[in-house]
Amino acid sequence: MDVAEVAELLAQVRRSSPLVQCITNYVAMDLAANAVLAVGASPAMVADPAESGEFAAIASALTVNTGTPSPRWADGMVRATTAAVEAGRPWVLDPVAVGATAMRDELCAELMARTPSIVRANASEVLALARVTGASSTAEAGGGARGVDSTDSVESALDAAQALARRHSCVVAVTGEVDVVTDGTRVATVTGGHPLMARITATGCSLTAVTGAFAAVAPAFEAAVAACAVYAAAGSRAGCDAAGPGTLRWRLLDELHRLDESALRDGAQVVSS
Amino acid sequence: MDVAEVAELLAQVRRSSPLVQCITNYVAMDLAANAVLAVGASPAMVADPAESGEFAAIASALTVNTGTPSPRWADGMVRATTAAVEAGRPWVLDPVAVGATAMRDELCAELMARTPSIVRANASEVLALARVTGASSTAEAGGGARGVDSTDSVESALDAAQALARRHSCVVAVTGEVDVVTDGTRVATVTGGHPLMARITATGCSLTAVTGAFAAVAPAFEAAVAACAVYAAAGSRAGCDAAGPGTLRWRLLDELHRLDESALRDGAQVVSS
Amino acid sequence: MDVAEVAELLAQVRRSSPLVQCITNYVAMDLAANAVLAVGASPAMVADPAESGEFAAIASALTVNTGTPSPRWADGMVRATTAAVEAGRPWVLDPVAVGATAMRDELCAELMARTPSIVRANASEVLALARVTGASSTAEAGGGARGVDSTDSVESALDAAQALARRHSCVVAVTGEVDVVTDGTRVATVTGGHPLMARITATGCSLTAVTGAFAAVAPAFEAAVAACAVYAAAGSRAGCDAAGPGTLRWRLLDELHRLDESALRDGAQVVSS
Repeated sequence: MDVAEVAELLAQVRRSSPLVQCITNYVAMDLAANAVLAVGASPAMVADPAESGEFAAIASALTVNTGTPSPRWADGMVRATTAAVEAGRPWVLDPVAVGATAMRDELCAELMARTPSIVRANASEVLALARVTGASSTAEAGGGARGVDSTDSVESALDAAQALARRHSCVVAVTGEVDVVTDGTRVATVTGGHPLMARITATGCSLTAVTGAFAAVAPAFEAAVAACAVYAAAGSRAGCDAAGPGTLRWRLLDELHRLDESALRDGAQVVSS
Repeated sequence: MDVAEVAELLAQVRRSSPLVQCITNYVAMDLAANAVLAVGASPAMVADPAESGEFAAIASALTVNTGTPSPRWADGMVRATTAAVEAGRPWVLDPVAVGATAMRDELCAELMARTPSIVRANASEVLALARVTGASSTAEAGGGARGVDSTDSVESALDAAQALARRHSCVVAVTGEVDVVTDGTRVATVTGGHPLMARITATGCSLTAVTGAFAAVAPAFEAAVAACAVYAAAGSRAGCDAAGPGTLRWRLLDELHRLDESALRDGAQVVSS
Repeated sequence: MDVAEVAELLAQVRRSSPLVQCITNYVAMDLAANAVLAVGASPAMVADPAESGEFAAIASALTVNTGTPSPRWADGMVRATTAAVEAGRPWVLDPVAVGATAMRDELCAELMARTPSIVRANASEVLALARVTGASSTAEAGGGARGVDSTDSVESALDAAQALARRHSCVVAVTGEVDVVTDGTRVATVTGGHPLMARITATGCSLTAVTGAFAAVAPAFEAAVAACAVYAAAGSRAGCDAAGPGTLRWRLLDELHRLDESALRDGAQVVSS
């Protein structure tokens, strides 16, 4: 997996404009939908259980984010993921703040049982998810979220990510200052981005939605690496000389929209092992 | 209807600052409220059935958008539209993704039975709405939505728009690269805008909210044409030299805020027939 | 309370990055979360009754905004405020559009019974809240909201603010062109800001969320004054030469992020009495 392959997958997203169903939180809806549009795909935010399963059968990919859960939305997530799996469609889980409340732990365990193609999370969430699903022991997985922000380093979550990936036969993307993607065997590292990205909300959530767009056109491991690389490059360019997080936010969409192979090379590095 | 009349209606919105109740989807709330504010009106996002009907009786206009429906919100929409009709207030329907799921079809049919003053939709939605409400036969209305984005041209939906307008005694605004507004007899065409407008979410949803502001100060046909013209002009100016969709989004609000007659002439053409 | 003290509290927020649980409306979620991040704190939008009380026990402060209420969210607000009070954590109430519907009146009365540390509201809301909770008589508190925007001047609400503060042993911040903060005895006035701030949605709601961040590190009166001063300074600088409300919105986040004591002095004045 190198930058040229990422550029080719981005071109495929733009050519085929896959329909991506996004069940995400109230805070991230706007940025997530705009990010999916900016990379050239078509977002549809269909969450209610009265239609989420029906819609999952016609979408090319599904993404599920637990940022602002409720029992009704949890039901919508379960129906959508069940329908996506039945239809053979890829789906991406973003287990926001798993570990912080009992409802999130139960919901994420239930969703993991439906085998996501990709889990996209920060380090603390990966550690908590591994604990909640029994992929790693409590002793191994220390750490712990503090609200929705990670307090653990990406490196410290690598073992848990690999354990999760192996136990659930999925790809895990741990994102932060450096992003690490693993399927339990292969490991790819993506660097780039900008420190200001941690000062706007929904950066991770919108990356999850964009990961869904790539999952519609590529195998899970390649899709996750490509989405991380696209975000790292766009974020790095958007953050350059930015006066603050307000500027970064709209520039991120501009850069996602106009990213080409040269800009990708300029803003992101991908190392596979 | 010409640009001078549009400018006069915009001045009226700014002078009277009508209170516009907007029931819209989770994705569009922010842009819709800001667009209503930018043209000089006062938005209120009151959706829950526990208060939506009570509030509709005090608002100057109501807009209803089915982008992220649930049974509870559907109930809120029904109560609000019922109260608006009883109070003699104009209301605008935006039937997002009608045709995509059974819930949307049923909800939109129920709302159409409460006779909106204006329907604002893309071409695929107009075709689906005409089919769902029996205004045109299945044979006539081919087309079909793909998620929330239109896959049909505005021209292909003109017959369905006129059939809808006649059967429901309402005005239909079909928006896209060109906007067509009809009351079943008269037809007005609005051109302008910018291709990047299709790369940000909620452009159509926020136009619906702004249409509500105009419906509070003008008859339905004139209100729909004026709102389309204002959006076409602001979008055209906002898109000029924009680096991408992120830039377009905030510039659209700036342009809506400072639009005057000369800027209207510069960015939009209105042709009535 | 002077600008140097405000700068010191801002530095404390940045150093300790308190976890602020925000229950806010669908429109304001994005700007509120980003404003909390921009001042250096960590927002968590946890609202559902299935977890809001559990989470309030681990957050450093809680803010509750009634902008888009429903019975379920009202339950979430009641559980969260109850838990915050039990845990001895500060909480801030933003009674959006109290006075406009019966549900809002009942909800705000129920929340006031849980003694917020700070009420942050516009003048019409303060007048209505004083009426609803019996802090001032109907005769005194004329005024009245029109939707979510104030139709009363800050000065006209000062008596009601002091009556509210005394009766409920809380601090009341009445914001508008000028902000007035009172604990029933002391009164501080904050000037600054920019007229365009009234032309974007969620300015007040996001100020409420930021007030929560300050309440986590300072007593209620000082926290409310500091939050108002920070917003006045950032808004004043963001509005300078802004082409419109779109520009103001992202610049506000940039300015919140990079505000220092000199910028505070430049954009806000604080007068205590």
